[in-house]
Amino acid sequence: MPFVSIRLAGAATREQKAGIVADVTASLVTRLGKSPAVVQVVIEEVSTENYGAGGHLLADRDGATGRGDAHAEPRR
Amino acid sequence: MPFVSIRLAGAATREQKAGIVADVTASLVTRLGKSPAVVQVVIEEVSTENYGAGGHLLADRDGATGRGDAHAEPRR
Amino acid sequence: MPFVSIRLAGAATREQKAGIVADVTASLVTRLGKSPAVVQVVIEEVSTENYGAGGHLLADRDGATGRGDAHAEPRR
Amino acid sequence: MPFVSIRLAGAATREQKAGIVADVTASLVTRLGKSPAVVQVVIEEVSTENYGAGGHLLADRDGATGRGDAHAEPRR
Amino acid sequence: MPFVSIRLAGAATREQKAGIVADVTASLVTRLGKSPAVVQVVIEEVSTENYGAGGHLLADRDGATGRGDAHAEPRR
Amino acid sequence: MPFVSIRLAGAATREQKAGIVADVTASLVTRLGKSPAVVQVVIEEVSTENYGAGGHLLADRDGATGRGDAHAEPRR
Repeated sequence: MPFVSIRLAGAATREQKAGIVADVTASLVTRLGKSPAVVQVVIEEVSTENYGAGGHLLADRDGATGRGDAHAEPRR
Repeated sequence: MPFVSIRLAGAATREQKAGIVADVTASLVTRLGKSPAVVQVVIEEVSTENYGAGGHLLADRDGATGRGDAHAEPRR
Repeated sequence: MPFVSIRLAGAATREQKAGIVADVTASLVTRLGKSPAVVQVVIEEVSTENYGAGGHLLADRDGATGRGDAHAEPRR
Repeated sequence: MPFVSIRLAGAATREQKAGIVADVTASLVTRLGKSPAVVQVVIEEVSTENYGAGGHLLADRDGATGRGDAHAEPRR
Repeated sequence: MPFVSIRLAGAATREQKAGIVADVTASLVTRLGKSPAVVQVVIEEVSTENYGAGGHLLADRDGATGRGDAHAEPRR
Repeated sequence: MPFVSIRLAGAATREQKAGIVADVTASLVTRLGKSPAVVQVVIEEVSTENYGAGGHLLADRDGATGRGDAHAEPRR
């Protein structure tokens, strides 16, 4: 019955999101012995105009323009 | 003072959302004796590309394409 | 797949919580045509020392003492 | 490490959001002695079609049309 | 800047929680190229008296007694 | 209608929480022109055994013992 909510600053690709869902589900299955079927994961891609850190909007901090490309370069 | 957050996979019609708000508010009024005025309800319609269950994105599981029509056929 | 989070100020009885879960699930089943099995509901009973409204902690506003009895008198 | 989530009914301007992030961060720094660097704030602008109060969608209550202008007139 | 909230039904051991934090952080680092330092994870252990699924409190469904031992037997 | 959720690592005093509620409410009143009456704020004090950052539980990182004293020294 675990329910997981993940808030990211900026967008992620569908492939990245699928990978995160798979990883997080596997962790809860392995660590807690839960069935994968009961694990739910929601990913919220938050615009950098709506995400603040250190007292500033990320959009103001790093010059991004809204629903930014913070994750544009997934690690390879 | 109850605050209710509801996350749905896919979209709902305005009529469906109005009905859910009415039902949930009525429940809290009846069960807890609260005034309807203090009950707040937020409904988040989550794209099936951002909602995972069973280790997979719903969009990959059921062939939906993003902000899907999971609730297109409300029960009558 | 709906996931519902309900935050209450103060405590509720087990019977009240069971009633709320039943009502909310029924609403989502009726309004959206979802299977009851996929509806998850979490109820958080927030101490009135941790819940603010109108600029003040509820505990300061109404003289309650923490994990209060805001719901002590369910409506009959 | 504080994490703050703010849900607004309707939209806010970038300037309003930047101001809220600055204010909330300053409060946590002052009240708790935290470093500003560890404070994260997410602002969710919820459509008035998805926000209910008093048993009704705000969009139905005040005639707004969805992602409304509830905050169109920031106080001066 | 990812922020992750995980709600579990019942309790988990400190070791289980540490493992989940490590796994989830590693996933976001790998999938999104984020620095581990910016990943925050909160785990909420929800009493089975406060967690409903299928229209019933888990505590009523499986005979658990509140802050239960749903995760007492982590998978080995 | 703003609803604010604040998650802190460790405990805060009642005075600290009252101050945060006052500050955050004032910010939303000033920035958005909202009535203070409609602003709700919930503060969740999360045990350092349930809060992870940088891939580790805070409790493991700084030797705290659970519902810690992360905020024991409010700034003066």
